[in-house]
Amino acid sequence: MKLLRYGPEGAEKPGMIDAGGTLRDLSDHVADITGDTIDDATLARLRALDPTSLPAVEGTPRIGPCVGNIGKFLCIGLNYSDHAAETGAAIPEHPILFFKANSAIVGPNDDVMMPRGSTHTDWEVELGVVIGKRAKYVSAADALDHVAGYCIVNDVSERHFQTQLTGQWTKGKSCDTFGPTGPWLVTRDEVGDPQTLDMALDVNGTRMQTGNTSTMIFTVAQIIEHLSALFTLHPGDVITTGTPPGVGMGIKPEPVFLKEGDVMELTIAGLGQQRQKVGQDA
Amino acid sequence: MKLLRYGPEGAEKPGMIDAGGTLRDLSDHVADITGDTIDDATLARLRALDPTSLPAVEGTPRIGPCVGNIGKFLCIGLNYSDHAAETGAAIPEHPILFFKANSAIVGPNDDVMMPRGSTHTDWEVELGVVIGKRAKYVSAADALDHVAGYCIVNDVSERHFQTQLTGQWTKGKSCDTFGPTGPWLVTRDEVGDPQTLDMALDVNGTRMQTGNTSTMIFTVAQIIEHLSALFTLHPGDVITTGTPPGVGMGIKPEPVFLKEGDVMELTIAGLGQQRQKVGQDA
Repeated sequence: MKLLRYGPEGAEKPGMIDAGGTLRDLSDHVADITGDTIDDATLARLRALDPTSLPAVEGTPRIGPCVGNIGKFLCIGLNYSDHAAETGAAIPEHPILFFKANSAIVGPNDDVMMPRGSTHTDWEVELGVVIGKRAKYVSAADALDHVAGYCIVNDVSERHFQTQLTGQWTKGKSCDTFGPTGPWLVTRDEVGDPQTLDMALDVNGTRMQTGNTSTMIFTVAQIIEHLSALFTLHPGDVITTGTPPGVGMGIKPEPVFLKEGDVMELTIAGLGQQRQKVGQDA
Repeated sequence: MKLLRYGPEGAEKPGMIDAGGTLRDLSDHVADITGDTIDDATLARLRALDPTSLPAVEGTPRIGPCVGNIGKFLCIGLNYSDHAAETGAAIPEHPILFFKANSAIVGPNDDVMMPRGSTHTDWEVELGVVIGKRAKYVSAADALDHVAGYCIVNDVSERHFQTQLTGQWTKGKSCDTFGPTGPWLVTRDEVGDPQTLDMALDVNGTRMQTGNTSTMIFTVAQIIEHLSALFTLHPGDVITTGTPPGVGMGIKPEPVFLKEGDVMELTIAGLGQQRQKVGQDA
């Protein structure tokens, strides 16, 4: 099942994509797609609907973040062995955790706005994991039962803010619009094994990142086990699980960063695609 | 004005403390104390009420976090010159930012539960700043206009999780119950200058931390200027501004950490007090 939220920012409605690719409205069946409505029982109820009985949505509305009211926006750093190599970092012993501000979250095709003074804004295609069921002290063996589904996240990163403004990566990760999320929340039954997904990111039509979730250092299940030993994962929390090689800062001989007018396009197999234009705050 | 939220977890009601110290119910005048209700206009409306006309609350209900639905829980590290010295860290060039999970937030007198495997849980009395008005690219000169008020925060910290589980402090800061916040949101008109406040923390009746916000490296206004250049501060975001000397990990010759049954008591002048018993997750 491919769930999504469409409409103006802050007034998104719930929808789903039917087998033919048509956007159908779910407003009669669920108030919104949030942590309150992505439990197994609600998802089973939605799955039981006949999509062709739902109103088709006319036109091409804006697509919002695929989950509303995200509580924690958790990020795993350096989680692909080949990306760790490209940045010169050692393979971490445990998943590296940082937070992005949940105020950075935008829709999958909204503009990414570089903040004033930004000169080192970079891209990162990532697999996002949407928690559907409360998780505390869960084992890796049980972890995926706590996942509602998966989505694409662009973990946009200002490298100067991230590394040169005194400690902790959060500063370069949390700028407004630095968290495009969606287009779809694809439920876990449809995705199957999350460790077999091809992923790619283009800038201005040139392929920059190519990867597969099979090369993650810590699997989705291991990440959930580790994080849930630290704190409770709540329905509607999103974990973005690290990026494969090909980020701008890793390009030789000189790193490449985004500039105004650039276009990023991201895909993960089965999860749809994102497209963002890059702007600059006045 | 001293605003607060009282009642069972997740079902708190809004209240205020009158001049005589009596808890009065505000439910007829505001739905809750959240980012939606701490703008200047709403606060002026509440200030115009005659507190003695409000229903007095019977008994001694639980006190919840003084702000509900906190979006970002932003933390400044090493922001007191004497605390930086005690930890052996250099004076930072910019405010050090990390996030606590907003799921760590509890009431001021709720139990603090050490997670499984925790052996290095420590205390940090801090001045919390509650944003009342959206802030983006604001100057230090204008910054305090964006503050609704102030509160006490205990930035409870698991030092092993913070420093030994691979990078980024967030892991040791975000455990469930590690963010007691309140008891009161004291509005900025009543607090006046936030850089003159005495603060203290006792463990089991012994004074461990003594400080004054005058020794902050970066003032509240400077912190807001810096953060608002990185991302938008939204109403209901809370910034906790660092801790003065006397944390457990700084004690010589051997650091001291919390154990089950310990009691922490925190005060900041004009902002009330907190009291937490320490437990341990089974």
